[in-house]
Amino acid sequence: MNTIVKPIDRSSTKNSQQQTYHHPLPFVLESGKTLPELRIAYQTFGELNAAQDNVVWVCHALTANANPLEWWPGLVGHDELINPEEHFIICANIIGSCYGSTGPRNFNPETGERYLTQFPAFTIRDIVQAHELLRRHLGIEQIYLGLGGSMGGQQLLEWAILQPSLFQHQCVIATGARSTPWGIAFRAAQRMAIEADPSFFSASPKGGIKGAEAARAMAMISYRTRQAYNHSQPDDPEAVDNFRADSYQRYQGQKLGKRFDARTYHCLTSAMDSHNVGRGRGSVAEALSQIKAKSLILGIEGDLLFANDEQAELAALIPNAQLSLIPSEYGHDGFLIEAEAISKTLKSFLANESH
Amino acid sequence: MNTIVKPIDRSSTKNSQQQTYHHPLPFVLESGKTLPELRIAYQTFGELNAAQDNVVWVCHALTANANPLEWWPGLVGHDELINPEEHFIICANIIGSCYGSTGPRNFNPETGERYLTQFPAFTIRDIVQAHELLRRHLGIEQIYLGLGGSMGGQQLLEWAILQPSLFQHQCVIATGARSTPWGIAFRAAQRMAIEADPSFFSASPKGGIKGAEAARAMAMISYRTRQAYNHSQPDDPEAVDNFRADSYQRYQGQKLGKRFDARTYHCLTSAMDSHNVGRGRGSVAEALSQIKAKSLILGIEGDLLFANDEQAELAALIPNAQLSLIPSEYGHDGFLIEAEAISKTLKSFLANESH
Repeated sequence: MNTIVKPIDRSSTKNSQQQTYHHPLPFVLESGKTLPELRIAYQTFGELNAAQDNVVWVCHALTANANPLEWWPGLVGHDELINPEEHFIICANIIGSCYGSTGPRNFNPETGERYLTQFPAFTIRDIVQAHELLRRHLGIEQIYLGLGGSMGGQQLLEWAILQPSLFQHQCVIATGARSTPWGIAFRAAQRMAIEADPSFFSASPKGGIKGAEAARAMAMISYRTRQAYNHSQPDDPEAVDNFRADSYQRYQGQKLGKRFDARTYHCLTSAMDSHNVGRGRGSVAEALSQIKAKSLILGIEGDLLFANDEQAELAALIPNAQLSLIPSEYGHDGFLIEAEAISKTLKSFLANESH
Repeated sequence: MNTIVKPIDRSSTKNSQQQTYHHPLPFVLESGKTLPELRIAYQTFGELNAAQDNVVWVCHALTANANPLEWWPGLVGHDELINPEEHFIICANIIGSCYGSTGPRNFNPETGERYLTQFPAFTIRDIVQAHELLRRHLGIEQIYLGLGGSMGGQQLLEWAILQPSLFQHQCVIATGARSTPWGIAFRAAQRMAIEADPSFFSASPKGGIKGAEAARAMAMISYRTRQAYNHSQPDDPEAVDNFRADSYQRYQGQKLGKRFDARTYHCLTSAMDSHNVGRGRGSVAEALSQIKAKSLILGIEGDLLFANDEQAELAALIPNAQLSLIPSEYGHDGFLIEAEAISKTLKSFLANESH
């Protein structure tokens, strides 16, 4: 394989250092509001081959960062199906995040103050438009495989509709064509918990963390299943308090609180709510019919947040899509936990599609 | 029917005025801690008949009060299956509640201050012991029917084990033999939301309300189903924000915030977590085998909080119990919403059991 050096020096990308693309112009959001400038943090792994046909673009979910080797072991990594030896892997931190792209903790150049709760509302389409800016900056004209679960899958669906010729294949996992009232209700409760913490509205860059901890604990319910909790958090039958599931929720909340930002959590969950591929395109069916990528639609058994009929709908409405259900006790989080089963199904899909 | 006037004057109870039984002695909790005195608010409807065999004791759930005619229409009321013309209906406000019985907003006679977050932790068994005090005060020696759903069902199961000869029949709905890690996880997330609101820890009697609003929104998820949200809260397909499910969650939260107390919410959810009929009794099976009441166990289809296999377990382990599943789109809240279907099933059960 030869490395083709295009607009940027890819030699610097071999070791997965996070880079930032600075877009110095106003970025117009779907709402009509603008961000005066945009920074898009991203990581790449491996090298673009001579045929430029080995790009795998990974879209990350709600609280992840631009390094899928870190959060998607078993699927993306040096000895995995998606690997830097074979693929040129790109992952961009989504706008609004706290992992390097422009988000609420950054300073608004127009006011000199941090955005915090004043960060403008944005949608999944806005996130995809930022990916598009980065793609053009990187000179990528064809993507062999788009890969993403949950909110990452929402981005891929939008992107494959916006640029039907861009993707050769896409694998979207545990997601749907539009956010459901059910999913919105889950996330609204989480935002209410964040808003119940008055420090969320303060000038402190760390404001809202206690609320975000509670939000994460609520989200965990939607990411797992009754079975998973009941099997993994059993109690001493003589206990009257200090139950394990309570400690587990607090642990998960605090773990997120240490690494994440409450304003980011608030605006990214709202962006998830906005997801509807049919908006402005006639209907969901009309929108999905435009997809040209060979699509593998994966559902996770027992997914409480994105129910399996949502993936069935995608497979029914995307031309020539393949639907598979990944067995799991975990529900939604299976899109990360069941990486090996996903890898196996994706491998077979890619092999068949190449014939 | 003749009215038998026993320790209290029941003539005053015909019109459902809330009354209070004052227990002036220390009330020892399962934890070993004590409440220096206890007030138990209760309401009665109808009159005890000569045979003293028409008592229906209703146990209320998490945020209800002592008036089931108010919150259980379709099942309890003047033209309903359970009615004051035929039955002597008793309902006691549970300890820890904010509807009249001793709870966090009351003044601790030992300190002269409100209990607030210092209200001692208590269990479902403690709630039942308070019911027992009231029962003895009222001179009730036989209960024709014990009736309760969710946390009310938890109380009834405990009570029917504690006093096996007391109940002729019981109808327990949408509940289980012990709280599951899944249910505890749901409630822990809710308590975390309350604790994220620092006013919860303040001296204000209204402290923690914003947190309680978020907790209620989270609880709504566990009370309903995906179908119910998706059918009742559809959005304009062109919407990007202000989604109906978000507004609904906020509305439900605020509605509870106006009528409830955050410290009560916090300690009652912990009491729910403590529920395990097997504690100190060998096992759940051993405990349930002691029940002598003719038992109708009702599950609500799609109940996310108390899954239908929990009701199946109850029916399998309680001697001669009958199990029925009530069809519903609502899930757990069906124990209130599907009152007519419950009424029909209960009527047939009571008729058969009387032969």
